[in-house]
Amino acid sequence: MTIETESANSQPSDDQNRVLAVVGVGLLGGSVALATKQRGVADRVIGIGRNPERLQSAVNAGVIDEFLTELPESDASWTTVVIGTPVDRIAEDVQRIAAVSRPGTLITDVGSVKGSICEAVQSAELPTGVSFVGAHPLAGSHETGFEAARADLFDGKVTVVAPNPASDQAANSAIRSFWERLGSRVIEMSPTEHDAALATTSHLPHVAASVLAATLPEAFQQLAASGFKDTTRIAAGDPDLWVAILLENATAVSTSLDAFSQSFGKFRTAVENRDADELKKLLQVAKRNRDAL
Amino acid sequence: MTIETESANSQPSDDQNRVLAVVGVGLLGGSVALATKQRGVADRVIGIGRNPERLQSAVNAGVIDEFLTELPESDASWTTVVIGTPVDRIAEDVQRIAAVSRPGTLITDVGSVKGSICEAVQSAELPTGVSFVGAHPLAGSHETGFEAARADLFDGKVTVVAPNPASDQAANSAIRSFWERLGSRVIEMSPTEHDAALATTSHLPHVAASVLAATLPEAFQQLAASGFKDTTRIAAGDPDLWVAILLENATAVSTSLDAFSQSFGKFRTAVENRDADELKKLLQVAKRNRDAL
Repeated sequence: MTIETESANSQPSDDQNRVLAVVGVGLLGGSVALATKQRGVADRVIGIGRNPERLQSAVNAGVIDEFLTELPESDASWTTVVIGTPVDRIAEDVQRIAAVSRPGTLITDVGSVKGSICEAVQSAELPTGVSFVGAHPLAGSHETGFEAARADLFDGKVTVVAPNPASDQAANSAIRSFWERLGSRVIEMSPTEHDAALATTSHLPHVAASVLAATLPEAFQQLAASGFKDTTRIAAGDPDLWVAILLENATAVSTSLDAFSQSFGKFRTAVENRDADELKKLLQVAKRNRDAL
Repeated sequence: MTIETESANSQPSDDQNRVLAVVGVGLLGGSVALATKQRGVADRVIGIGRNPERLQSAVNAGVIDEFLTELPESDASWTTVVIGTPVDRIAEDVQRIAAVSRPGTLITDVGSVKGSICEAVQSAELPTGVSFVGAHPLAGSHETGFEAARADLFDGKVTVVAPNPASDQAANSAIRSFWERLGSRVIEMSPTEHDAALATTSHLPHVAASVLAATLPEAFQQLAASGFKDTTRIAAGDPDLWVAILLENATAVSTSLDAFSQSFGKFRTAVENRDADELKKLLQVAKRNRDAL
């Protein structure tokens, strides 16, 4: 066990302390850390990661109180853990954390995909008394790193909580309440429902924005005005993170891409046929849906 | 001739006065009106349109000085005219205005399409001494109406000036200078070049954003976060205006839609094949292009 700050050594945790551990102190993990402290949801926040320089910077910036680069053997001091690592690492991190946690520990995550993660965790079977309930705060950004973290990132934003059929009701309620106390509006969905919805509302738009950006010839860059910039903003996201998201949710994403292609084909046919009536109908549906947001 | 304000009657125009007429006092036409007054480019601005109530409101709001709902028979007082009507009406409006203008009058427009307009105007042959040089300020918005007009709308924004092969050099320079004096950075392109570029940077994104919005099921609306909202913002544009734009530029738009489909197909295949390397390459190109803006 490597606890790097003095306060951690002089202040051994006990069950009275509400200690939050954040695995992966990036934009989302860092914002969870800041929000829990600001809202009195935890007394102490431990950052867990691989890079001691980055973690020390997060301590210096006041995002976390202390950090670990290795997990304790057992009996860890935390009571709640938020996993903020890339989606293809979350299931494994949940198991690593659970293995050293005390009974009663609650684990949640911030991953953009829920089905594959929840399934892997469920089939791995966590130690008795340790619960995992997956979550996804819809409060991302194309920015990354704890430097972009904000205590109010979740304020008024939706967080999807996606319990496994196996997760117990008390753990579900506690995780739901955790996310509500960070300021977010919780919607409960099954992992599968979540993935189908997010394939349409987030993963498909990422592909569409990326295709637009990818097909822009350099010569036309100076003609890309605010419309193009808004439409492609999310294409600036981290390619590694997005490969993981798109492939972890590949089945639902493929379905969304197909639905997009079909609708795109209708617009294309209407333009090719100079069919003003049909094109107007299609654009009206789009405007009505957009205006409803 | 219907001049509605007293000042117009008591102050007959002469060649010393720089009088701007704006046909179609909406977001762009209204912003041209405000910018010309604020920057001393015109002494007087006449709004021309169909709806006297709207035009009177624009006078009351200080956007224009006076208005006409019918054109004079001949010998009109303006020296410069900006056509701000929908793209499928611009060519006709240029001819109507030119027919009653004095020699020396310069006409420009704000249309999002240039080829069809410039061609129609060129083949119609304007009266001797009256010149049309098409333009397109890349400063739109999904908002409409003079209420959204701003004197600084063109500040630092690109305006494409797209002379016909037939337009004379003096008129080109004067129109170029007109748009520069409103604060914009002028890029000169042929009408065909403009339409090919804008098909990619504006018309295609409008279709992609509309397809995303059109395929969003109502049940998923609450899961549409900032990424979805940004990506689809332009889908809130006026369907009638966009039918006109997409069909006036149908050939170039079809080419852009095909290029999009092809690239979209690559993303789709990479997802279906769970091909992380290929997907990462595609996302990296997209990110690089987006970051370059």
